[in-house]
Amino acid sequence: MTENILLIPGPVVISNKVQQALGTGSVSHTSDEFVAVFSSVLKKTRQVFKAGESSQPLVLAGSGTLGWDIAASNLIETGDKVLVLSTGFFSDSFAECLQVHGAHVDKMTAPLGGVVPVSDLRAALTPGGYKVITITHVDTSTGVMNDVKEICKAVKHVSPETLIVVDGVCSVGCEKLEFEAWGIDYALSASQKALGAPPGLSISMLSERAVSVAFSQKSQSCFYTSLKRWIPIMQNYESRKASYFATPAVQLINALNVALDEILEHGLEERIAKHWTTSDWFKNKVTEELGLELVSANARVSAHGLTAIYVKNPPEVISALKNMGIVISGGLHKDIQGEYIRVGHMGESACNDSLQHIQSCFDALKALEL
Amino acid sequence: MTENILLIPGPVVISNKVQQALGTGSVSHTSDEFVAVFSSVLKKTRQVFKAGESSQPLVLAGSGTLGWDIAASNLIETGDKVLVLSTGFFSDSFAECLQVHGAHVDKMTAPLGGVVPVSDLRAALTPGGYKVITITHVDTSTGVMNDVKEICKAVKHVSPETLIVVDGVCSVGCEKLEFEAWGIDYALSASQKALGAPPGLSISMLSERAVSVAFSQKSQSCFYTSLKRWIPIMQNYESRKASYFATPAVQLINALNVALDEILEHGLEERIAKHWTTSDWFKNKVTEELGLELVSANARVSAHGLTAIYVKNPPEVISALKNMGIVISGGLHKDIQGEYIRVGHMGESACNDSLQHIQSCFDALKALEL
Repeated sequence: MTENILLIPGPVVISNKVQQALGTGSVSHTSDEFVAVFSSVLKKTRQVFKAGESSQPLVLAGSGTLGWDIAASNLIETGDKVLVLSTGFFSDSFAECLQVHGAHVDKMTAPLGGVVPVSDLRAALTPGGYKVITITHVDTSTGVMNDVKEICKAVKHVSPETLIVVDGVCSVGCEKLEFEAWGIDYALSASQKALGAPPGLSISMLSERAVSVAFSQKSQSCFYTSLKRWIPIMQNYESRKASYFATPAVQLINALNVALDEILEHGLEERIAKHWTTSDWFKNKVTEELGLELVSANARVSAHGLTAIYVKNPPEVISALKNMGIVISGGLHKDIQGEYIRVGHMGESACNDSLQHIQSCFDALKALEL
Repeated sequence: MTENILLIPGPVVISNKVQQALGTGSVSHTSDEFVAVFSSVLKKTRQVFKAGESSQPLVLAGSGTLGWDIAASNLIETGDKVLVLSTGFFSDSFAECLQVHGAHVDKMTAPLGGVVPVSDLRAALTPGGYKVITITHVDTSTGVMNDVKEICKAVKHVSPETLIVVDGVCSVGCEKLEFEAWGIDYALSASQKALGAPPGLSISMLSERAVSVAFSQKSQSCFYTSLKRWIPIMQNYESRKASYFATPAVQLINALNVALDEILEHGLEERIAKHWTTSDWFKNKVTEELGLELVSANARVSAHGLTAIYVKNPPEVISALKNMGIVISGGLHKDIQGEYIRVGHMGESACNDSLQHIQSCFDALKALEL
């Protein structure tokens, strides 16, 4: 495919090594060779989520969206109450998914570009009764980031029985996320964002408590997402024993293995810090030097894997950048869809300075004299 | 990964061109470039299933198993009656999936190595009331093939209102399947078998009637498999308009595109015929020259993408072949699990004579003096 600079908020540019690991022949999903790779992927996934030995990693063939169904079909039974913190399109879609699985959803919607105040959240949780709360760490539609640590603390204080579910699709690998220390019960991500792998894998983590809820479900709403079926498989693979429920995406997992190596070799903290540096640089340049306004209200709620920027004629800007070889995205929030652009800066584009991707994007935006 | 001859019944050996198409950088899922590829994949999928313009192709990130959930969550509501024709492990697992989605399942189990007689099927359908019948075209656990054409004819005659669902995971690309002419309503397959692509894509086809059932469902049991959400996306992509519900597995679809090209350039009929020739040759040699017995009872019910063979010590045979660089599979049917081996011959290994894969496998088996 062509050699544009891909700066959408996922799929992201993958490294040469990841690409090589992807373009390999098929091997048996039960071969020692693949079992070793999958085992390593599961162990490294635990590290990247900062999860402990008691947590359960899960890597399935599917889009990131599948993670919502995994959460909803295993943690929710008809009528269970769920509190959804909405910061945009993806939080709302997750709410829809929960409803499909029979949840009674109460939604707290943040003002556009902002987050739900933790005091409001505390008040909403105080009467009790919520089985699950969902937090979209970064809503890719707005570039708004929730303070997951703070929210977890509030939930643990006011309603400790509530399961904490974090959508980390646009955060794992580029934002601070401490699955175990913060007491998260289920966090879901996808391969094609800050993890730097190709699209097609749903990657997630369960706490012991979430596993026990999943195993004690009276009814099940899906087969492919069934944790009762998948967890023994994942545990076998992790302990290097081939096992079968559905055929894993062998080459994608091989590519993810290399992508996770690159993150851990760089150092997870360093890699996250690098995403923050890149993001801060770009956001400062865009606001200070170009005088543009961001969708995210302030630095405290701004994501570090993408930047959502108000511009006058988004399709024209996108098309002009495309002509300069840079691919960015349009808006995805119903209230302001035609008013902003989204620039992704995750993985290689954010971390590999020699590529000059973000500099090039800034230069291109500057050249447009917006 | 290593260069063994991979002869399990999926994943199969992929061609060099497919491998190259897989090992490409990420592109935007909404780029003109990818939209053109996806459009072409959907059109070619229709050709490979022998489906007409009114049929709806569907390509989702996921394992083949996901196709069962697509069928069950869109065509079944709680209490709906489903007749399952079981020819092995995969038919039984599909039945389990249907039950998870609330179906009332009646199962007709074929004798080991055989199929359910069509006369029995007619009798079972006569009282009416079955919303869906499921047929596993080839059950990969036994190598038994159903006569889907004959079964469709019987269903149309006795119970025309019953939706016909065909699991073609181990058949599309290597067995005759005429989606439209036979009046199939939903057929599902996967990328890693006779289609000759890497694992990770669920590929399926819906009739107009199935689409209308899916759209008129009162309740839904899954979000990711929702046809109400996916069909508009697939229709947009096919007509070259980018559209979003969940991020497609860009590189896998690029690889599938090349794999489908290879099938259609070879000629679908010729390609199927070649699988039959390879399969017949192997089965004859194994039974006549080596005096071994097949799990499938006779040629009429024998699949052409794999051969299931009784041997005395399967783990020893598998391990001996592994040492000779040939990877085959063990048994997967509960009653005879430790009594047979499975050799896959799909895609490149069956069609590319210069590879000599099946000859090598036969020679290796012969050398063992079983």
